[in-house]
Amino acid sequence: MHRHTLKERVQFADTDMAGIVHFSNFFRYMERVEHDFFRALGLSIWDKSNEIPVDERVGWPRVHVSCDFRAPLQFEEEFTMELLVVEIRPRTLRYLIRFWKLDGELCAEGKLIAACVRRDPTTGKMRAVNIPDRIRSRISVAPESALAPVA
Amino acid sequence: MHRHTLKERVQFADTDMAGIVHFSNFFRYMERVEHDFFRALGLSIWDKSNEIPVDERVGWPRVHVSCDFRAPLQFEEEFTMELLVVEIRPRTLRYLIRFWKLDGELCAEGKLIAACVRRDPTTGKMRAVNIPDRIRSRISVAPESALAPVA
Amino acid sequence: MHRHTLKERVQFADTDMAGIVHFSNFFRYMERVEHDFFRALGLSIWDKSNEIPVDERVGWPRVHVSCDFRAPLQFEEEFTMELLVVEIRPRTLRYLIRFWKLDGELCAEGKLIAACVRRDPTTGKMRAVNIPDRIRSRISVAPESALAPVA
Amino acid sequence: MHRHTLKERVQFADTDMAGIVHFSNFFRYMERVEHDFFRALGLSIWDKSNEIPVDERVGWPRVHVSCDFRAPLQFEEEFTMELLVVEIRPRTLRYLIRFWKLDGELCAEGKLIAACVRRDPTTGKMRAVNIPDRIRSRISVAPESALAPVA
Repeated sequence: MHRHTLKERVQFADTDMAGIVHFSNFFRYMERVEHDFFRALGLSIWDKSNEIPVDERVGWPRVHVSCDFRAPLQFEEEFTMELLVVEIRPRTLRYLIRFWKLDGELCAEGKLIAACVRRDPTTGKMRAVNIPDRIRSRISVAPESALAPVA
Repeated sequence: MHRHTLKERVQFADTDMAGIVHFSNFFRYMERVEHDFFRALGLSIWDKSNEIPVDERVGWPRVHVSCDFRAPLQFEEEFTMELLVVEIRPRTLRYLIRFWKLDGELCAEGKLIAACVRRDPTTGKMRAVNIPDRIRSRISVAPESALAPVA
Repeated sequence: MHRHTLKERVQFADTDMAGIVHFSNFFRYMERVEHDFFRALGLSIWDKSNEIPVDERVGWPRVHVSCDFRAPLQFEEEFTMELLVVEIRPRTLRYLIRFWKLDGELCAEGKLIAACVRRDPTTGKMRAVNIPDRIRSRISVAPESALAPVA
Repeated sequence: MHRHTLKERVQFADTDMAGIVHFSNFFRYMERVEHDFFRALGLSIWDKSNEIPVDERVGWPRVHVSCDFRAPLQFEEEFTMELLVVEIRPRTLRYLIRFWKLDGELCAEGKLIAACVRRDPTTGKMRAVNIPDRIRSRISVAPESALAPVA
């Protein structure tokens, strides 16, 4: 799978005194669609103890995130997030996440690079590891046409 | 110690489209003064591994919280929180937290009851335990005069 | 209408380092079901300019909120909020909001009192007003049986 | 002025179940130092009604933000944010914001481009305008040496 969409509605607590969604919440929204993508793959972004052995569990800290803002989102407005897989490297996943208004206007475009990490049992520190095949095998890269810039 | 104060400034992300601090953030503010109170006692609300043995560490989940709102707080406004210890029970602490505007107006009054818990090593579940003496010995109950309702 | 339910899923950003939903987020969840209740009534908690004349618009600031916590909510856990109208006064609405785990366990119970206010065009300040009939006529008080304490 | 620093402490509600500051909160922190920078200039990011005539007030919505993460921040950890002015265009300001641990380690580096906008009294919409001289005159661009990448 290389694409996933999620429809959301702006909540009151997401707005600020400018009357629009506070920019930091676009990153919380991005994470929502990323985690929903994993659920759609039959996975969880947070490996559970009863399903995955301790030494095979991985986490996905962010290495880089960004967002370009084109139009604000208002209270109670519904919008659709479109997640596209841009690149799969041995130890990182790169996503593009588009925020669409219901009338088809692109209101924001985010990028997110997450690293696949595992806790070192000796040091307790996180270190980058290859993406396990149980995850890697379910994800593909979106076609170039889907990733082309929106006019 | 039975009283602790902390001065804060309203941040932009704390406001909502009504132009004032979103009510849920008063609870985040309350936690700030509670944790600052523990630091002022030479403690931390989160027992660190290198200071406290595992089987003596405790946590403080909330059993009950409430807030009465009298006047809103605005962006960039400074305010003072006043934490008062209302009651010390064997396994719970009860606080009153007042939000004062700089001109002396009471803008909100919160209550917080936190339970002292420890993770059961067998079940992994939290269960209430007596407040350790290293914490109990540093806290006292505020005098009735301090706890009297504000006109 | 005197009852409204909403199913939600715990998001990663709602958790804290204790591994459970941060208590302040229960208040954000409460507001979600309150606002969804208004939408189910064909209303909005935020009167829009193009639907309601300026001098008839009202807002709903919180006068009092509280929450009793019984059991934590975990990441990705689904839960149902049940909003019940407890009291309708001329200028305030009082709600009870229960948080149910999917297995039927009550994990938290919140209370919320919201005042009906209108901006005074002269002073610019909010002042309490009677709940407009367009809203009042759609809301009723839940029966006592529904409001009885949960064992 | 082209540089401003602000020391903060990680709050409990800023952490997530991974035990570190949730990445979205780095953007809230960035905004804190940006707004503190304006206060240090004798300004406010939000022009107040009693100080600035309505038709001269401006706002600063974000056009682009990003963050590169190198090391996590923990609960109660103190850190210093260093804001540097990277570019001053007629209608935008570009900042670099570095997050330093107290031992001198760079833990994150953010970028923020804010547009200077004014509400059009006819349409009610925001449109980009030249940065007013009362603001422009107080800001300068940081020297290249300060902006050089951190090893």
